[in-house]
Amino acid sequence: MLGLMQDWPLTVDKILDHAKNWHGHREVVTRSVEGPIVRTNYAEIHRRAKRVSSALLAWGIKPGDRVATLAWNTGNHIETWYGVMGIGAVCHTLNPRLFPEQLVYIINHAEDRIIFVDLTFVPLLDAILKHCPSVERVVVMTDPDHMPQTQLPVVDCYETIVEQGSEDVTWGGFDENTACGLCYTSGTTGNPKGVLYSHRSNFIHTLLGLQTTVLGATPKEVILPVVPMFHANAWGIAFGGPAAGSKLVMPGARMDGAAIYELLEEEKVTFSAAVPTVWQGLLTHLRDNSLKLSTVKRVLIGGSAVPESLIRAFNDEFGVEVLQGWGMTETSPIGTLSNMPPEIEALPFEEQLKWRVKQGTPPLGIELKLKNYAGQEMPHDGKTYGRLMVKGPTVAGAYFKEEGGEILDTEGFFDTGDVSTVDAQGFMQITDRAKDVIKSGGEWISSIEIENLAMGHPKVVLAAVIGAAHPKWDERPVLLVKLKDGEIQDKQEHLDFLHGKIAKWWMPDDVVFVDDIPLGATGKIDKKLLREQMKDYRLPAAG
Amino acid sequence: MLGLMQDWPLTVDKILDHAKNWHGHREVVTRSVEGPIVRTNYAEIHRRAKRVSSALLAWGIKPGDRVATLAWNTGNHIETWYGVMGIGAVCHTLNPRLFPEQLVYIINHAEDRIIFVDLTFVPLLDAILKHCPSVERVVVMTDPDHMPQTQLPVVDCYETIVEQGSEDVTWGGFDENTACGLCYTSGTTGNPKGVLYSHRSNFIHTLLGLQTTVLGATPKEVILPVVPMFHANAWGIAFGGPAAGSKLVMPGARMDGAAIYELLEEEKVTFSAAVPTVWQGLLTHLRDNSLKLSTVKRVLIGGSAVPESLIRAFNDEFGVEVLQGWGMTETSPIGTLSNMPPEIEALPFEEQLKWRVKQGTPPLGIELKLKNYAGQEMPHDGKTYGRLMVKGPTVAGAYFKEEGGEILDTEGFFDTGDVSTVDAQGFMQITDRAKDVIKSGGEWISSIEIENLAMGHPKVVLAAVIGAAHPKWDERPVLLVKLKDGEIQDKQEHLDFLHGKIAKWWMPDDVVFVDDIPLGATGKIDKKLLREQMKDYRLPAAG
Repeated sequence: MLGLMQDWPLTVDKILDHAKNWHGHREVVTRSVEGPIVRTNYAEIHRRAKRVSSALLAWGIKPGDRVATLAWNTGNHIETWYGVMGIGAVCHTLNPRLFPEQLVYIINHAEDRIIFVDLTFVPLLDAILKHCPSVERVVVMTDPDHMPQTQLPVVDCYETIVEQGSEDVTWGGFDENTACGLCYTSGTTGNPKGVLYSHRSNFIHTLLGLQTTVLGATPKEVILPVVPMFHANAWGIAFGGPAAGSKLVMPGARMDGAAIYELLEEEKVTFSAAVPTVWQGLLTHLRDNSLKLSTVKRVLIGGSAVPESLIRAFNDEFGVEVLQGWGMTETSPIGTLSNMPPEIEALPFEEQLKWRVKQGTPPLGIELKLKNYAGQEMPHDGKTYGRLMVKGPTVAGAYFKEEGGEILDTEGFFDTGDVSTVDAQGFMQITDRAKDVIKSGGEWISSIEIENLAMGHPKVVLAAVIGAAHPKWDERPVLLVKLKDGEIQDKQEHLDFLHGKIAKWWMPDDVVFVDDIPLGATGKIDKKLLREQMKDYRLPAAG
Repeated sequence: MLGLMQDWPLTVDKILDHAKNWHGHREVVTRSVEGPIVRTNYAEIHRRAKRVSSALLAWGIKPGDRVATLAWNTGNHIETWYGVMGIGAVCHTLNPRLFPEQLVYIINHAEDRIIFVDLTFVPLLDAILKHCPSVERVVVMTDPDHMPQTQLPVVDCYETIVEQGSEDVTWGGFDENTACGLCYTSGTTGNPKGVLYSHRSNFIHTLLGLQTTVLGATPKEVILPVVPMFHANAWGIAFGGPAAGSKLVMPGARMDGAAIYELLEEEKVTFSAAVPTVWQGLLTHLRDNSLKLSTVKRVLIGGSAVPESLIRAFNDEFGVEVLQGWGMTETSPIGTLSNMPPEIEALPFEEQLKWRVKQGTPPLGIELKLKNYAGQEMPHDGKTYGRLMVKGPTVAGAYFKEEGGEILDTEGFFDTGDVSTVDAQGFMQITDRAKDVIKSGGEWISSIEIENLAMGHPKVVLAAVIGAAHPKWDERPVLLVKLKDGEIQDKQEHLDFLHGKIAKWWMPDDVVFVDDIPLGATGKIDKKLLREQMKDYRLPAAG
């Protein structure tokens, strides 16, 4: 017997409708790519998004067609998202930090018909678009006064199409499982793979994200998503902000400490979200200029494990709580969050750190288990490593065009490729990528855990740990260190710093000082490239 | 083109699975019907709910079969809900405050096969069950020591079936649109009508409810739902509590001020939900005994409009924020909430009251419009009355067995039967039931608005306003007043109290002192019965 409740498809156009109807005057403030701060609100964004839809329809965009964006976090980018998704087309967010050849591959694989591009990236498109035959048209997201010189064949100006567009467009009315967004994983192995979000998955993800323990968005919150809309949906903020009626502050092209600080203070931001490197940049700016944060209460940090030193600095120096999150493109991306339950929050802050450095627990809607290589489920004892497997309505079931084939196990869980533990309190901690974990004497050593500790040394800018071949133990860890300018190289000092903080058999066999450590497109250490760069390295013990 | 995310049906068994896996040790504390405080947790509730399921399966309960509960808010009642719903049967919550003949009607209409009953209500069942041929079995929710003498033919003891049950039961695995719960509306006109919730609607309702602006449940919150599980799903708390891992405090059979106060303080409750009359009782107890509330931060009040005096008392005397909610059985029940946006919260509290007495704005997932009798949509100006229409995935599309026929308008909106306004800030205010509104000279007068003001008079226990026939104006308002013991009847004093607070043409034509004002099964004033009682009344002007 079926229930008798209304059939109301979960489609994301309803999110912006809701924002227009109930939070229409709430501001969306952007540091525009052209420079000035631009103010709009949800009613206006809704109106303009409809006009974007009408232009797309006039150009013959049909449901299921891919329309790409190569753009910063701006109000215009939000309009474009809803304008594309509202008519059942698929919004494909391109990551401008990828190498040009990767972008070409992705655009061709997705068969993008139109690309909306920010001024910053017009030269990039100029260089590659001749290799992308599916692209019929490029819309430059600026006004007529700022339209650039370009070699691109068919080019439109965003403000012109918005001005000429019509608001008389119907959104929605399709199956909630209709494709809605497309985002390729950075793909450290093989070609990038596309995650094809549905309206349903994005809508449910929005509701998951509105919980107090996740974004906790409300009309009182002012949210600054530094995390890009091209990076796993800006962690859901471009949906959650309008859904809750929060004021949004969009940083545009400038994500340096000074620019972010200015927005945080001027716009009275209460909550922000970014990867650790952005926060490190902000902290440096705050300290160098003896500044305080007067309105920020909470920051969400994800994308890679958050160093303990960063959590402590925010708490001790600025009175800001760090909420650590874990997720990936394939999980929309919310996976787990480091919310403190009352029994942990009752402890002194220093003791809480044991949990605050972990990635936390999943919200309702995310199932999570640890599996060993034999497929057996591993206990939640905080010690046993297992491959992290996830399941839920916001988790990928397959990649676009079936790249990678079947990606779920027999119980329907997706293999994250991460190795992690879960403790008795339910806190998950990523110990490493399955392919980065160091296999030493039949046991696993977490490269990330050692890196995070090594980063806490005051002379260190960046640290990385990789496994080096060892005749007896198979692999042994090597610590690579990038020192601050002018600091003296002293291997023993870094080993001494780790002593007592990790098990003896985890201690690196060597320390190597390097000029730089390569970062991937999403700001994480590129271990694949690093291993490639270090391929001729030999451990002292290995002769 | 469809998205490629996982197919993960939204079924409520996953809510309790989640609670067991990630918040298993979180407490559920009950004032048991037998008397003592009983402590359990989500892991244990999950274990016992499975055993309830195994008993149901052994008795031949199949998907879609109705299993009823006639019970207070207890941990056992939560177990029963999940035990029934987990196997695809329909949990039918019976309201023990209904008249026996209404209960008989409802049980027969629902064709309940089994009834789980608290000790309190065994005599009630004893009296009526011979008129309910579909009921095969009654489970008394107690232990063997407390099993009562009863005339019921087939009776089981709850603790015995839990003890003998098996945990090896599979939950879920069915379509998310499968029927899940059944609740009859109190039905002031015609027969009671059943709202048949689906797993999908309950799951989505849970997610709506977890927003900061609704329940805002987290592991740090301790929630006491006074609002009964038989009254519109306890406003979602029996789902939202486990989903978020909040500690639940269940009041059992005692909802008087002293009993509630004791639980609030002893169990360190932070959030509670109840109808206004419960809170009036608590306030009286607090004042009479000069008590303070040391942990409660917020109370959700709904079921009928919250008098300004109650909001002010909680704020001024106890530092507790009142969150007013509106909803109905047909809306699962969350409809709107009186969250203060920042621009209103910045005002002095006295000025905020203008909005705090309103029912507020809808969360994402609830569409809402005002319609006049011609079906035209009315403006959001805070003045224009319209019938309140709602739409969404948690709103009824039809009643059980098609009672009442088609209940949606051509755009799919459900007619709430309420008349309301919406102001420029989006705040909805119920002005009256469509059938209680007083038609005076072609205009509408809200009986509820006058009642709420009249209730603020210090000598008044309860006030009601009904329309009385008038030769010139069609109808005019009459104020009925129940005075506190020993107070002197003085009509003018109550009229003076209203002067300046309402428009002149809204002033009641008469004040009538009564010994009592009838309340319906859900604690609201029973206007239908009141009008019946007053049918011989004539206005002074009407001779």
